[in-house]
Amino acid sequence: MSIRIGILGYGNLAKGVELAIRQNPDMELAAVFTRRDPSSVKTLTEGVKVVPSFEATEWKDKIDVLVICGGSATDLPTQTPEYASLFNVIDSFDTHAKIPEHFEKVDKAASASNHTALISGGWDPGMFSINRLYGSCILPEGKDYTFWGKGVSQGHSDAIRRVPGVKNGKQYTIPVESALEAVRSGSEPELTTRQKHTRECFVVADEGADLALIEKTIKEMPNYFADYDTTVHFISEEEFIRDHSRINHGGFVFRTGKTGINGENKHVIEYSLKLDSNPEFTGSVLTAYARAIYRLSQKGDFGCKTVFDIAPALLSPLSGEDLRAHLL
Amino acid sequence: MSIRIGILGYGNLAKGVELAIRQNPDMELAAVFTRRDPSSVKTLTEGVKVVPSFEATEWKDKIDVLVICGGSATDLPTQTPEYASLFNVIDSFDTHAKIPEHFEKVDKAASASNHTALISGGWDPGMFSINRLYGSCILPEGKDYTFWGKGVSQGHSDAIRRVPGVKNGKQYTIPVESALEAVRSGSEPELTTRQKHTRECFVVADEGADLALIEKTIKEMPNYFADYDTTVHFISEEEFIRDHSRINHGGFVFRTGKTGINGENKHVIEYSLKLDSNPEFTGSVLTAYARAIYRLSQKGDFGCKTVFDIAPALLSPLSGEDLRAHLL
Repeated sequence: MSIRIGILGYGNLAKGVELAIRQNPDMELAAVFTRRDPSSVKTLTEGVKVVPSFEATEWKDKIDVLVICGGSATDLPTQTPEYASLFNVIDSFDTHAKIPEHFEKVDKAASASNHTALISGGWDPGMFSINRLYGSCILPEGKDYTFWGKGVSQGHSDAIRRVPGVKNGKQYTIPVESALEAVRSGSEPELTTRQKHTRECFVVADEGADLALIEKTIKEMPNYFADYDTTVHFISEEEFIRDHSRINHGGFVFRTGKTGINGENKHVIEYSLKLDSNPEFTGSVLTAYARAIYRLSQKGDFGCKTVFDIAPALLSPLSGEDLRAHLL
Repeated sequence: MSIRIGILGYGNLAKGVELAIRQNPDMELAAVFTRRDPSSVKTLTEGVKVVPSFEATEWKDKIDVLVICGGSATDLPTQTPEYASLFNVIDSFDTHAKIPEHFEKVDKAASASNHTALISGGWDPGMFSINRLYGSCILPEGKDYTFWGKGVSQGHSDAIRRVPGVKNGKQYTIPVESALEAVRSGSEPELTTRQKHTRECFVVADEGADLALIEKTIKEMPNYFADYDTTVHFISEEEFIRDHSRINHGGFVFRTGKTGINGENKHVIEYSLKLDSNPEFTGSVLTAYARAIYRLSQKGDFGCKTVFDIAPALLSPLSGEDLRAHLL
């Protein structure tokens, strides 16, 4: 029998999960839950039920894992604990500073109702976190570096679009090549925010807008741009649609460290991602973890987990025997 | 109380484990077991007992995890099952084709005596295997690539040294840069053995040896060199000692795959290692896994494991709370 996946929400990430399920023959998409009018939601997969989210309780025994595809700012802090008392759940909560608090709430709800939950799946938090953890355990005397990009930052793109006179805008975070090279050399450089990343903005301005003022407003925006070398390009709407419609992203996690009686041997561990579609890759990670969460729930291992608690073998449809014979 | 580690054997890998223990404050090196005359073994760590391996039984309750540092060809197939009935054990068995058989034997011995064992730790098998597994689960419709090097292949260096007229020799496996770039592009190329790696040999010849014959013998050696573009350099003994004494290694694991309704989005996952000392890095990995094996044994989770079965959090000295707050 297939693992029956439910999806809550139907934005880009939800569609990424839906597409990932099609690549995993042991899973099926059982239902999409939405706060919108269900008749307005047209799924990519034929014949999938679209259900108003207030009817979710009726699906309690028809869903093995619910993938919650809301936003970290306002949706997930309430949705994940709420649905964890009805379903095994998984989310991609990515407000790093609030993870401990979110974990506690979800753990309480999942444990009380005998469900298994996983928070903060995806690539950062997620695969990047795993690589930071493995790296720090293997090379305890060393240093971590995380770089993001080249890719689209939704938060920074939103910030640009709030500037008066801006019709549309997109921001790319770009790691500085010389900083990557310095880290790769194993020299363990100290790098400032400005030395690690640059920010490149593509802006469609309203007709007659003051371009110099827009550029100044963006470049001096605190938290978002002031600490970075930022470039602003004004382009036409056509160019924007043609060249900047992808939601690509990626990045690098390094651990560098030393071993030897006098620390004479350097080691560099590098993990990198180049993703044409951030939501589709994130959805693919969540889908693999949904399999693990289902298995843990079957074993009676309830409560909230993170990617740190999941043995790699639990992600795979293959048996332990097959994994040892073919992938070890 | 510290985790008490024992080491069986005292070659390069064992010294790597010994050095790694010094970087992990929750561990101590309790004893080194040797088949040699103990008085001939001088450990790097002051005051460590060197014990003849036939006395190991007496240490049954004084060692939490025994790291078995023998060779895969003849030592580990008998040592690991044997010692798994006395201790929690970990090895770096790396004969990929024989892993299933080795696993069965170790599992039987460990399960019967309530011990926990881990086989095939290190980086390949080990960290590379984990990355192959994660990659294949996240991007089920994709392709794996593993490249090794630049680094020293002990097996190929041994093969060179067996050629008549060769006094000393070292072989470096080198990934072909254009092949790496083709994989990185996400184009999923089909690559032959020859297209993936080249082999570079540094040879010190006996005085008066037939250099042309040595070169021909090396280059045409079946299995080892015949399928590769091989370069042979003849150098002096001084140059050999000066430039080729390190046991550096490394490599790359890629998973590339596609997502999207028509597979229109490409993704590239790349994991790479650049290691100044292969045995010290391998020893560092084994030491982190020793912590995990100790914890599993404390929980009563006995039998044989591989890196696939170990949740990342088990490797870390930090609590789940600290990991979530600082590394997720």
